[in-house]
Amino acid sequence: MSVIARQIVLARRPEGAARPDDFALAEVPLGAPGAGEVLVRNLWLSLDPYMRLYMADSGSIHGSVALGEAMPGGAVGEVIASASEALPVGALVLSMAHGWRDHYLAPAAQLQPVSADLGPVQRWLGLYGLTGVTAWGGIHGVLKPQPGETLFINAAAGAVGSIAVQLAKRAGARVIASAGSDAKCAWVQELGADHAINYRREDLAARLAQLAPGGIDAALDNVGGSQLEILIDAAARQGRIALCGAIALYDSANYRAGPRNLFATIEKHVTLTGFNAGFYFPEASAIIADLAAAEAEGALTDTETVLEGLDAMPQGFVDLMAGAGRGKMLVRL
Amino acid sequence: MSVIARQIVLARRPEGAARPDDFALAEVPLGAPGAGEVLVRNLWLSLDPYMRLYMADSGSIHGSVALGEAMPGGAVGEVIASASEALPVGALVLSMAHGWRDHYLAPAAQLQPVSADLGPVQRWLGLYGLTGVTAWGGIHGVLKPQPGETLFINAAAGAVGSIAVQLAKRAGARVIASAGSDAKCAWVQELGADHAINYRREDLAARLAQLAPGGIDAALDNVGGSQLEILIDAAARQGRIALCGAIALYDSANYRAGPRNLFATIEKHVTLTGFNAGFYFPEASAIIADLAAAEAEGALTDTETVLEGLDAMPQGFVDLMAGAGRGKMLVRL
Repeated sequence: MSVIARQIVLARRPEGAARPDDFALAEVPLGAPGAGEVLVRNLWLSLDPYMRLYMADSGSIHGSVALGEAMPGGAVGEVIASASEALPVGALVLSMAHGWRDHYLAPAAQLQPVSADLGPVQRWLGLYGLTGVTAWGGIHGVLKPQPGETLFINAAAGAVGSIAVQLAKRAGARVIASAGSDAKCAWVQELGADHAINYRREDLAARLAQLAPGGIDAALDNVGGSQLEILIDAAARQGRIALCGAIALYDSANYRAGPRNLFATIEKHVTLTGFNAGFYFPEASAIIADLAAAEAEGALTDTETVLEGLDAMPQGFVDLMAGAGRGKMLVRL
Repeated sequence: MSVIARQIVLARRPEGAARPDDFALAEVPLGAPGAGEVLVRNLWLSLDPYMRLYMADSGSIHGSVALGEAMPGGAVGEVIASASEALPVGALVLSMAHGWRDHYLAPAAQLQPVSADLGPVQRWLGLYGLTGVTAWGGIHGVLKPQPGETLFINAAAGAVGSIAVQLAKRAGARVIASAGSDAKCAWVQELGADHAINYRREDLAARLAQLAPGGIDAALDNVGGSQLEILIDAAARQGRIALCGAIALYDSANYRAGPRNLFATIEKHVTLTGFNAGFYFPEASAIIADLAAAEAEGALTDTETVLEGLDAMPQGFVDLMAGAGRGKMLVRL
């Protein structure tokens, strides 16, 4: 079997925010799988803020994508031709490198077989994948909230944030969330947040001072930049902040930069712990079991924003970075 | 009884490094103590890098000293006149606010009685005071090194660093230290450091990569600025860094700034924990007992650099900031 794969390539390195025409469509003929390989038809593609880092030439642990190369990313697909006993035709597979395309060839050993038994298969990109493991790692791996502690989560209507809000509530924390619209704030309160701050309309620092006059015990920071500075200033003595990402800085060459007020950590014995899901994947089966238990208890709702078709990827990514969507943003092929 | 107190006042806010003529001598007549007050003759004055922050107008938790006001700082003195039953004449007292002067009047309730039973009385400024509690807090409160871990300490010939090196060795860590001269490096190796790097002559990042190819498990950072950036880059996965101070930045209005590579903490799951001795003073009696035990075991040597007379304070402070001295720098009156 051979197919013409459609894939989204990086056409231009953005300056500032990514735009749809930073991407282009390319068609690539794929032959039959060689020994040990499989041909996969993607069913679901993931959109995640960290993908912005691929688009820069500086790279990160994620690496940098060359101009003209297909964008990488998470995808769940179905094997449609196989030269591997391990992955027969019909097998469902997760790939973290072969997103942004409708078909790909890859060695079976590089792919992770997944099952639809635990719920909708796209959950391997969301609740049971990078998103859920990140949220779980931030709340239970890093912050470990104690009942009654005040915990802050920003980007709370996003994929990681919306799961983290619910895990923190389930752990007994008092949760203050922030999001970019009143409608999103209402939604994160439906998810269980005790308070939600529309950071675009309200003064985040002033609201945190009102809602947590004794300071914030713990915070999950997806945003970085000036929001991280506000969180450090709002932290309680011996507060702790989990650094999950820096979406506010990803459009800048300066995305690696730290806050201007780090010295406040010395004054207040504040801890900043960076992390990413990679450190928690070895525990993924236990984490997934816990997330499934949370859902079964009624303590966790999994929410997806689903776009349709490969061509939706560029604008979907631009919209994601601008704060569109609720929960996990996915593209269905 | 009344005396003319000699005190060192702030004459000018330095731009960049402090200079001796940023200070001036002033004489202030002190009357007899009022009810509840004592008149104290200082015996020992402390010199510490954090005092540079007093000299700026921006302040910190330490506050800012007004021009013409006496510099604050730690001091141990003897009560020479008393209107307080709690502190009779002859009592020894520790003050954290009445350094840089030979006599002062203060309410007895603001002073801490100290004893010479545990060793030389100036130890309440050093090993049993701010210095020792800071070193202990950094090693045992924050970093908690496990046997065999590689732990890095900068400013290792300084007051806090030289104690911390010995506590880390006693805890079973492999200790890499840095200091600003070959002679200091030799000395910190005598104290037990497994390796010492002269950061003025050697490339700190390159030497750390040689000595700890798997990365540094833990680090105590007294220096901040570009040294902190090197430590973040040199940190092992899930490494941890205790932020104790930022002497490299204290001459700058920008001393609160964070590293340019904070994002590396997300890539490597690195933890930065700021702290200061204030958080560990509630445990001071247990900490002092542990430090005394370390000394009794032969695992800890307390080293002082002693200057003579109040007039030595300005130049002594300038020299301290330039890296002079070994161990705790003190002025004997």
